[in-house]
Amino acid sequence: MKISIIGIGLIGGSIALKLKEKGIASFIYGIDNNNTHLDEALNLKIIDAKVDLEYGIINSDLIIMAIPVDSTRNLLPTVLDLISENQTVMDAGSTKSGIIHSIKDHPKRPRFVAFHPMWGTENSGPTSAISNSFSGKAGVICNKEESAEDALHLAEKIIESLDMHLIYMNADDHDIHTAYISHISHITSYALANTVLEKEREEDTIFQLASSGFSSTVRLAKSHPEMWVPIFKQNKENVLDVLNEHISQLRKFKSALEKENYEYLEELILNANKIRGILDK
Amino acid sequence: MKISIIGIGLIGGSIALKLKEKGIASFIYGIDNNNTHLDEALNLKIIDAKVDLEYGIINSDLIIMAIPVDSTRNLLPTVLDLISENQTVMDAGSTKSGIIHSIKDHPKRPRFVAFHPMWGTENSGPTSAISNSFSGKAGVICNKEESAEDALHLAEKIIESLDMHLIYMNADDHDIHTAYISHISHITSYALANTVLEKEREEDTIFQLASSGFSSTVRLAKSHPEMWVPIFKQNKENVLDVLNEHISQLRKFKSALEKENYEYLEELILNANKIRGILDK
Repeated sequence: MKISIIGIGLIGGSIALKLKEKGIASFIYGIDNNNTHLDEALNLKIIDAKVDLEYGIINSDLIIMAIPVDSTRNLLPTVLDLISENQTVMDAGSTKSGIIHSIKDHPKRPRFVAFHPMWGTENSGPTSAISNSFSGKAGVICNKEESAEDALHLAEKIIESLDMHLIYMNADDHDIHTAYISHISHITSYALANTVLEKEREEDTIFQLASSGFSSTVRLAKSHPEMWVPIFKQNKENVLDVLNEHISQLRKFKSALEKENYEYLEELILNANKIRGILDK
Repeated sequence: MKISIIGIGLIGGSIALKLKEKGIASFIYGIDNNNTHLDEALNLKIIDAKVDLEYGIINSDLIIMAIPVDSTRNLLPTVLDLISENQTVMDAGSTKSGIIHSIKDHPKRPRFVAFHPMWGTENSGPTSAISNSFSGKAGVICNKEESAEDALHLAEKIIESLDMHLIYMNADDHDIHTAYISHISHITSYALANTVLEKEREEDTIFQLASSGFSSTVRLAKSHPEMWVPIFKQNKENVLDVLNEHISQLRKFKSALEKENYEYLEELILNANKIRGILDK
């Protein structure tokens, strides 16, 4: 199968590597505004050729869009305009409602399958791509009833080839869940980095003292705004809702400390400890 | 050298393993209120014998206290009462000012070296102990001028045997730095866990969707209150100071989203990205 990947970065590159390794992709066209990324991807044999958008779309069976969610939203109608009824389009974005809404009246809507692989790192670009990235992680398909049966079937095959476990979800529910399982983590991590950078003017002290705990909590703060601003923008209401809850949770810690109410502090911590039972199932 | 370790948990156990491996410890006495931990440590050959406090202290050259910081603060005067001028005591606590203050007029103050290994995990107990835990991490000695020369020298040898790089710091400065490099990370992680647990009533959804990013940010929320309540208590003022700053940083994200000021949001993220340059030096 010939596959075009629009956006040969961390996600697009990792998908390409895995689909070649599994023998699913016989030829991969890379499409990207960033020519350096295309050249890197060619050198790393992540893609077989770099092509322009129209050529790639017309000449492939499957088109996977792995670009920032606002770009997907803008470009998807054009991509659907260009394909035939035998081709399939998937995205890989972290928000789903806006993207799905943008094509809801498009005559080729059934050719699109809304996909979100629940994996990412703070790194970007094809040099960060890893073929086994997705193994064991959740691969979410949203609003599957709006996709044609054969398109859905192909997307499921792709997601299984990435070794992900399939989950079906309504797009609105997806955007609520990802707000607190993924998007809020990024905001707390960014805010934590800014807190430390604001309070700690001696960079050497941060570097010397930084423990594994700090590095782990602040890791996501390295993530690029090109990807994350559009996510926060498209999922604004849900993210704000969770952010307000998070600030009120932090205020409970503040109040417990201010009032020296250490029984309450212990209670808050014991409640947080329950996350162990859920994550380590 | 015979060493007594008070508190055979994650930290005490990891220190014991490494010092045996390096041939520094010829015999390790384990002292712990938790008899199950002592038996586990014996079975894992982390300690050579379980003894009571007095026996262990009298019969060892070096005593390492790896118990919660409030217990160290309470017990340290008694430990110093029991030792001779040829013995040395170290702690391993995450706060330093309170502990040092508690013995400032003790006649055997010079026999004590205030130590903080900048390593830990969300796990606890001797079964979590790992001998190479400390390699490459910072080992902080506070107020070294208050320790006797031979006691300091021994502590330095121990820290180097743990393969840590030595840092000297004033106790008050240490407590400020650790507030934002370690303690605040735990509060944000606890609060994030509580946010998700509050908003997401479907535990299965958390489990299924949880990405590596979420797991990484929330990892510290598994840490036990027995260790962390005393740390927050002893470092209350500094932690509150950083917590207030953190809440105000989060409010900036909230405001940027509410006002749909995406240029400002990008600016906040770009500032946070600077942490990459500092952590990845």
